[in-house]
Amino acid sequence: MTKWLKKEIDKTKVVISSRIRLARNLIDYPFPNKLKKEQSDEIIKKVQEAILNGNTVLKDEFDFYKMEDLEDIEKQVLVENHLISIDLIKNEKGGALIKKDETISIMINEEDHLRIQALFPGFKLDEAWDLIDKIDDVLEENLNYAFNENIGYLTSCPTNVGTGLRASIMVHLPALAELGYINGVLNAASQIGLAVRGIYGEGTVSHGNIYQISNQLTLGRKEEEIIGNIMGISKQIIEKELSARETLKNQLGLRLEDRFFRSLGILKSARVIDSTEAMNLLSNIKLGIEMGYIDEIATRDIDELMIQIQPAYQLKLYNSKDTLERDINRAKFIREKLNF
Amino acid sequence: MTKWLKKEIDKTKVVISSRIRLARNLIDYPFPNKLKKEQSDEIIKKVQEAILNGNTVLKDEFDFYKMEDLEDIEKQVLVENHLISIDLIKNEKGGALIKKDETISIMINEEDHLRIQALFPGFKLDEAWDLIDKIDDVLEENLNYAFNENIGYLTSCPTNVGTGLRASIMVHLPALAELGYINGVLNAASQIGLAVRGIYGEGTVSHGNIYQISNQLTLGRKEEEIIGNIMGISKQIIEKELSARETLKNQLGLRLEDRFFRSLGILKSARVIDSTEAMNLLSNIKLGIEMGYIDEIATRDIDELMIQIQPAYQLKLYNSKDTLERDINRAKFIREKLNF
Repeated sequence: MTKWLKKEIDKTKVVISSRIRLARNLIDYPFPNKLKKEQSDEIIKKVQEAILNGNTVLKDEFDFYKMEDLEDIEKQVLVENHLISIDLIKNEKGGALIKKDETISIMINEEDHLRIQALFPGFKLDEAWDLIDKIDDVLEENLNYAFNENIGYLTSCPTNVGTGLRASIMVHLPALAELGYINGVLNAASQIGLAVRGIYGEGTVSHGNIYQISNQLTLGRKEEEIIGNIMGISKQIIEKELSARETLKNQLGLRLEDRFFRSLGILKSARVIDSTEAMNLLSNIKLGIEMGYIDEIATRDIDELMIQIQPAYQLKLYNSKDTLERDINRAKFIREKLNF
Repeated sequence: MTKWLKKEIDKTKVVISSRIRLARNLIDYPFPNKLKKEQSDEIIKKVQEAILNGNTVLKDEFDFYKMEDLEDIEKQVLVENHLISIDLIKNEKGGALIKKDETISIMINEEDHLRIQALFPGFKLDEAWDLIDKIDDVLEENLNYAFNENIGYLTSCPTNVGTGLRASIMVHLPALAELGYINGVLNAASQIGLAVRGIYGEGTVSHGNIYQISNQLTLGRKEEEIIGNIMGISKQIIEKELSARETLKNQLGLRLEDRFFRSLGILKSARVIDSTEAMNLLSNIKLGIEMGYIDEIATRDIDELMIQIQPAYQLKLYNSKDTLERDINRAKFIREKLNF
């Protein structure tokens, strides 16, 4: 295998997913929170037609959903697959267009009239941008976007004004965290206007060593510049993480492998476990898979588990407010997923 | 099940094994370290004939071994089954008579001319005494024991003079240890002339919470009194341990079960493990089996593992003097025993 190709594969090990969303609004309507039902229906119809009645290939690739017509369970499934937000399903004025391969979803009448989101597994921010940009063009041909020559696209919340663009990648940085290099990474990123934050946990602590790198600014920069900045810093972070993994491997040797398998053994056996411990063990297992030690599970199953064991998700599953009971349910949930 | 019967079963949970040995010497010979080869052969012959040519049922129940005639591997197997000592196999003057069911072994020309040992699983000190006493009677009818009216049987080492009796039970006391009651038990036992010591580990620390209760004195007491003392204190210790287990169960609830299964999960998965950690995890698993939580393994397998993972045993198996390498081998050994 050639070296650059190998490097590409290594990158997919660190990056869990790439996400881009655009916020867009139509010129002739108030923002969604002020919309009347007939107006929201008009917007839904216009967006639906822009995609489904157009003469592009897109028209066969999307499914249309109107929130008020969906069963609760159908909405639930869309939320769980990260295709629409919980806010949208609570909103009877909402709609959604979802690409059949689930890489693109367009929420209608959520915080903005349009929230176009592309979500790809792995390090594919450029692919995500190409696709979302193309869809934005198709929509713009058919809709009157609220746009100001000086500041750009207008949005419901001022933090999104300008490009309306939020791009992010989700990365797993266990080796940088263990070696104490995470703060350096945070600082480097913030100096070029990017935010790095732990996804789970609070403050600078990230349970499971999962971080999100995203742009803080949407205004005063071109879309390509924003994407390029994230791509650039991400490549550096990925390389640093991969080199930190080699360092750990050299420092710890078989003790690193031992840690991976013990983590798996504990999660397969525990009867009570809180989300912090579970996240840290899952992080170990994920690293163990990515470094080639564990092969009985796929990283994607671990990524999924990391979402599913969160307090909010578990609360929804089991509806238990007692901490011990929740830790018992979580342990059982994990055992069932890992002991197949 | 009636209450007393249930109580009997509970006792077997705490007591791993019961052991009695008698030291005896013949009047017409020097102690073994001063024996000439022809004398040692005479002694072997006399003991052999006393058992095998007698007119009791014993004659069909024993196998005879002469150390100089055995292959190394045969000696090794006898040692590993706790039937003869390492000292005996190094000694070309030695012999052994072993009961076919392996409950009794008679070592000839070890430290004393005769070392008669009974080893039973569980709390069976009285059965062991009945059997060993009967065998001692048969031998005494045929051999001239070195005996002094005032002090009793004479032995090679003065600490065994008198009854020549050492009786012991091996107990597993994890709950007493966890609740901090072990020192009270040690003191109570020592006040009636018994010694309680951790089998593995050093000083008062017992890795794996395995203790041996044995008589310190062999002189000035009748055999039945010694056995009776150990039986009595053991019953008290067993009851205290069982009640401490109930306390732990009430205090910890599912966290106790969690600990049992995590211990099992870790031992099934670890790639590096030292004997201290392994012993403590095995102790947890043993308690988990005895309290009815774990049923995929038998306590006897855990008892066996506790012996096999000791540094000396592992050194013999793998012949590795490097600590890390030994911890790696130990982890592998345990995984192979537990993942069946």
